[in-house]
Order: sequence, then C-alpha cells, then structure tokens
Amino acid sequence: MIPDRQILVEARKRIHPFIHQTPVLTCESIDNMAGAKLYFKCENFQKMGAFKMRGAANVVLQLTAKEKSKGVTTHSSGNFAQAVALSGKLTGVKATIVMPSNAPIVKKKAVLGYGAKIIECEPTLEARESTALQVVKDTGATLLHPYNCYKVIAGNSSAAQELVEQVNSLDTIVAPVGGGGLISGTALAANYFSNCTTYGAEPEGADDAFRSFKSGKLIPMIDPKTIADGLRTSLGDKGFPIIQKYVKDIFTVSEQEIIDALRLIWERMKIIIEPSCAVPLAAILKNKATFKGKKIGVIITGGNVDVKNLPF
Amino acid sequence: MIPDRQILVEARKRIHPFIHQTPVLTCESIDNMAGAKLYFKCENFQKMGAFKMRGAANVVLQLTAKEKSKGVTTHSSGNFAQAVALSGKLTGVKATIVMPSNAPIVKKKAVLGYGAKIIECEPTLEARESTALQVVKDTGATLLHPYNCYKVIAGNSSAAQELVEQVNSLDTIVAPVGGGGLISGTALAANYFSNCTTYGAEPEGADDAFRSFKSGKLIPMIDPKTIADGLRTSLGDKGFPIIQKYVKDIFTVSEQEIIDALRLIWERMKIIIEPSCAVPLAAILKNKATFKGKKIGVIITGGNVDVKNLPF
Repeated sequence: MIPDRQILVEARKRIHPFIHQTPVLTCESIDNMAGAKLYFKCENFQKMGAFKMRGAANVVLQLTAKEKSKGVTTHSSGNFAQAVALSGKLTGVKATIVMPSNAPIVKKKAVLGYGAKIIECEPTLEARESTALQVVKDTGATLLHPYNCYKVIAGNSSAAQELVEQVNSLDTIVAPVGGGGLISGTALAANYFSNCTTYGAEPEGADDAFRSFKSGKLIPMIDPKTIADGLRTSLGDKGFPIIQKYVKDIFTVSEQEIIDALRLIWERMKIIIEPSCAVPLAAILKNKATFKGKKIGVIITGGNVDVKNLPF
Repeated sequence: MIPDRQILVEARKRIHPFIHQTPVLTCESIDNMAGAKLYFKCENFQKMGAFKMRGAANVVLQLTAKEKSKGVTTHSSGNFAQAVALSGKLTGVKATIVMPSNAPIVKKKAVLGYGAKIIECEPTLEARESTALQVVKDTGATLLHPYNCYKVIAGNSSAAQELVEQVNSLDTIVAPVGGGGLISGTALAANYFSNCTTYGAEPEGADDAFRSFKSGKLIPMIDPKTIADGLRTSLGDKGFPIIQKYVKDIFTVSEQEIIDALRLIWERMKIIIEPSCAVPLAAILKNKATFKGKKIGVIITGGNVDVKNLPF
C-alpha cells in the first residue's frame, strides 16, 4: 500500500540519527539563466555521498531482531551498495554485497571501508540476482531492493520533507527518475507536506518512466544508454502508481543537455555531483516556459564520481 | 596602521549586502584521519568563487564619489581580477583590469561577464605594473592592490568573523599564506572576536612567509614553484607585521601533500576547491600532534579551477 503521511513522518524520525540534514544551496547565475529561483537540495553531501542512505537506513532500522542477526544483502555496483554497507555498519547488522566483477575499484573499496563483505559475480543482471538469492539461501539474510520497496520510498521521501521546510513556499520540486524510488518519495512528501507540484526528469536514452507515464502502462527499460549511470535502472511497479497519481509531468533531456548542465553545476556552484543530478537542471533549462518565475526545489542525488574520468 | 577591532566590524557591515555569508561544512571521514574536528569555511561558494570578493568590495565601497566616477583598475590574472570586476559592477564603478596575454580564457570571460574592460599586456610583472600605471595616468582610476592594503585585509577578515560566530568555541583557525592578505585579516579577527589561535600554511615551493616569519625579516619570494597558484605571490609588508604579532606558527607542505589533500576534499566533501585551499588541510594532516583533539576552522579560499585540467 502506498505509504501514508504518518509513515513518511515516522521514516524521517527513524533515520534522523543516522543521516545528515543536508544543506540547500542557491546560485544566482544559474537562476538568471533559468529565469527562476532554484534551491538545490544537496544529497551529494549526504553520508556515503548520496540520498540512497535514507532509504537503506529506513529498511535496515525496521528489521526484527531475528532478521538483524542474520544480516542483509543486496546486489549493486553503485550507491545502494555503499548505502546498505554503511547502514549495516551504523546499526550493527552484517551486510553482504553482491557486486559485479567489473564494478569500479573505488566503489568496492568504499563498501569494504564500511565493513561489509563483498561477493563478486559475473556482470549480468541474472548472475547478480542468482548470487544474491544464494546469499539469502546460505545465510538467511534479508534481501534489500534499491528502489522497488515502500520502506525505501518512505526513507527517500525525507529529503523532500526537509527541503519544503528549509525553503518557504516552493512552487515545485524536480527530481530525476531512475527506478522511481526517489521521485515517488519526493512526490508523496510534496503532496503531504506542501503545496508543491512534482516533476520528473529523465535522460532520452533511459526514458522508460516517460513512456510509461505517457502511455499509462509500465514499460520496462531494455537497453538504457546514458551517461547518467544512476538512472539506467528500470522503473519499479511500486513507484509507478505513485508517479501516475502525484507527478505532474516527466521531461526528457539529451546527453549533451545533461553534460552541459553537469558542467554548469560544477563550475558555477563549485560542487561535485554525479551526472544523474544534472538531469533536472537540464530539464528546467529546456522547459523555461513551464518554470519561469517559479521557486523550484532540485534534488541533487549524489556526488560519487570518479574525478579522474569526467565527461568534459 | 593595523586595523583595529572597530574597523573590522565596520568592514563586515559595509560589504554585507554585496557578499554571501558562506556555509561551514564538516566531514566525518576527514575528522577521523586528522584526529580533530574540522570546520571548513567555504569561500569557494562566495560570489565570483573566492574570498577575494570581500577585500575588493571593502575597498571599492570606501572610494569617494569623485574616485568612483573615475573608476578602478588592477592587474591580475586570477581571482582579484574577477573580484574587482564584480565589485565594480555591483557598485556602479567602472573597472579596467590589466591581464597578461596568457591569462586563461575562462578568467577573461568571467571578467568580461562582470562588465569590466580588459587591457592585455605582456605576461611579466613589469609589463603588468606599467600598464596599470598607464591606466591610472590616462583615466585617473584608483589602482587596487590585491593584498598589500589594510582595507583589503579588513574586508578579508569578515570570513573569519563569520566563522567564529558560525562555530562555537573554535580552538584554532588555519589559513593559507600567499601575499598575506587573508591570513592577516583572519588572525586579526581571531584575536579581536574569539580566543582562537591562528596558524598559517604554505607550500614548500613558495615559503617566503615561513622564512620571513622564522627569520623576523621580510624575505621576498623570487621564483615560486607550486601547484597552489593563489599562493605564488610575495608576502606584503602590510600583512607581515600582523602575522608576526598574531599568527602562532606557519607550516609548510610538499606538492604531493597538497595534491593528496586536494583530492581528499574533492572526493570526500564533494566540493570543488582550488589547490591553494588544500594547503591548510595538508598542514593539519602533517602536524597531527599540534592539532589533535582540537576544533579547527579551515578557510577554503576559492573554487575557480579549470575542471578540464586537474592534477589528479
């Protein structure tokens, strides 16, 4: 069942001791380009460097004592791996992360640094899923899904809950759409705690949410092609109905528009963000008529990038 | 005469409408490495991207009406050029910036973007100075010095004035030393408005302040060699006596230590900083016994870097 207002309030309270209330930054020169006032909610400054910490912590903290004793597992090559590893560390729950053999060494090191165990597998979705299921079978660990889970969605909603308190009378919030775990939590929070509308933003090369939203049917993403690696995942069936009900529209942007917006944020705001974070700004700059004169919250999702391998 | 407490208070008040009160960020993992609590004063988020805005604004705002009508000039290939250009724009004073012909195009664009006029010259200190003097002769403009000026020092002090209010009971502040305009303002503010001690940090390849401090005589920097381009300038005679009186010690660090600290801040804090900003952190990590268990303010001086040309 779609999380109600009270569930979101409790999620925020539950995870509070384990996360940062991240700051909101603004940038005059970007405001001038957009013809609007933008408020960037900086989850790149979140623990482990991304909003994923919120959802992961909310799941791990709700495990029973027995579940906690058997540990948690997930398969991820990205931020959710680190989020589960750190949530496990902070709550004393053993975490086993299934990572594809081609995952960046820096990500593996971070996971190990948080005290989690890594099991490597072939870099296919099938191998990842079967290896994780084997961990569950062998250890009784609870398998955590990075986004298709109401507890993750409720945890993620806390970023927008904070944002609408940090900035008075926002008109709208724009969030990127990958698996739908962030946008759905954001849209619920915007609906329950403010008068904001919520918009989604997606790369043209991974536009399953856009196509699903427009057609009214969940269309899986088969072969995503985008620099925004956090948004290559396929929209989940938990998030989709929330998006249908609470998101006003979804915009798509090209790879060049993402890269241009990414560089703009790096150079003008002096913050390090992942390519996925640039997708909402690209959408705002592309759809000026929609956003003109508005007070817009923008969720900056994370900052875990390889600074030796930039797209500009 | 060394600015007194009241002059610093007035400088802060004067420039307040023209600058940002920048945020203070912290980072658990860096604290763990240092064995101390670090509070980073983020002047990379300042207008035009560096603390230089504070000093430049404080000078321009104190010009007489007659001086304002004739404009201001300076020679700079770096942040002071942009600071004077933006201060001129915000106060309606015409700014003419002498820039060496080899100054990065991105810096020239920024200066032009703030509405200033650029006069190019040969890339030698002699050509820069003579060209600026010619501007003064031709136009009657006031020549602004980037650091060897009490009004600049008083303006720069406002960053530390804010910092000691933003963080309760700091033990010490560490700032980098280039021409001495930042460290001297910082040390004065720490002395007038808190019980903090102030330390300086300098690259081994541009250690004129270190050598001057240790010998008690102002030793000019002849041939600086460091990646920390903001610190290649020679210590000024206005700042030096303030450093002698109010700075407890100056530490030097190697180029590799600067690069390591730079990358640490980029990767762990997700903020874009100039190499100069990494010098204090490098000094703290190198001198752990001095800083162990302390609450330390660190001035992050600016974030204007070419993201296409990083040292790591």
